[in-house]
Amino acid sequence: MTNVNIVLFDDFTVLDAFGPAEVFGRLSKLYQVAYFSPCGGLVVGSANTAIETKKMSEIEARGILVLPGGFGTRPLVDNDEFIGTIKSIALASEWVLCVCTGSALLSKTGLLDGKNATSNKISWEWVVAQNAGVNWVKKARWVVDGKYYTSSGITAGIDMSLGFVSDRHGVETARKVSASLEHIWNEDNAFDPFAEA
Amino acid sequence: MTNVNIVLFDDFTVLDAFGPAEVFGRLSKLYQVAYFSPCGGLVVGSANTAIETKKMSEIEARGILVLPGGFGTRPLVDNDEFIGTIKSIALASEWVLCVCTGSALLSKTGLLDGKNATSNKISWEWVVAQNAGVNWVKKARWVVDGKYYTSSGITAGIDMSLGFVSDRHGVETARKVSASLEHIWNEDNAFDPFAEA
Repeated sequence: MTNVNIVLFDDFTVLDAFGPAEVFGRLSKLYQVAYFSPCGGLVVGSANTAIETKKMSEIEARGILVLPGGFGTRPLVDNDEFIGTIKSIALASEWVLCVCTGSALLSKTGLLDGKNATSNKISWEWVVAQNAGVNWVKKARWVVDGKYYTSSGITAGIDMSLGFVSDRHGVETARKVSASLEHIWNEDNAFDPFAEA
Repeated sequence: MTNVNIVLFDDFTVLDAFGPAEVFGRLSKLYQVAYFSPCGGLVVGSANTAIETKKMSEIEARGILVLPGGFGTRPLVDNDEFIGTIKSIALASEWVLCVCTGSALLSKTGLLDGKNATSNKISWEWVVAQNAGVNWVKKARWVVDGKYYTSSGITAGIDMSLGFVSDRHGVETARKVSASLEHIWNEDNAFDPFAEA
């Protein structure tokens, strides 16, 4: 059983987090999803959604770290304590998946330096300004570099999570999960209709 | 401001609820999202996700009722008190949006009798058995009949919510919301690649 540790924070984008959660939740014999935040307790994301979380310090089995994006990333990129904690969790995790501006948070740890990564296209200028040492790839639905997966905005996180499942368990398993979500999966991570917008 | 009242219950599918929530949350000057459940408090959906809710009895401004699906619908279709409450809220609501097997719940109220509706294709036989008086439309990403919107499984709820936005505010507004989600919107509600699966 691999733990999927989703780190939430105030004003995260709910669909960034619950797309991957639903994908991994469909493979409940392989993956166990749990939610964490800096202080634990209720965290309020977009659309007035309040989610119960445990404290980040309680993360034990560090399988997969998932970092959503959202407006809440704006103050957090300058929060050294938060970024330091993310860095230590990311270093100890087998895989790290960032959705949308979640990659801006990860870039501040330095762990993406010299690596390929992508992010939300609407917030692109802000994201790339967070760390010029990352090889930011604009035209990509999602990007894989070693243990780091980064996706474009919001529902691209569903496509990326299915891509992760495909990389680990084969494309047929990923297609089954996608069909169970009645999701029209964009399987080609190079296809990104939002890169030019 | 129109209230979007999302009714949750144990073992609901999180992506059924948070797809529409994120769409309406993007139009925060027009729509206000809130979560309700039979008893209020924390409700645990798929992927171990615990959401804070108010009691259904506290729903006041009845703009849009959203009913997600999920395994939790299986016992609820036989829960007369729950179905009765849903019926009274649906009658008082301006619009009702059902995602996935949420339409099975609504069908039990009798309000879909003689109306066109769709649902999840994997659970199709179970859904249509809940009420043979509904004109169940198998091949459809989503269906509109009067004030009732019903969608196929899970991420079809995102496409349907964008369809609802298009019907109320024009297709360009819906496309803007879709682009803000970097969502590849299936705009054609007759296109349903899962109907034959």
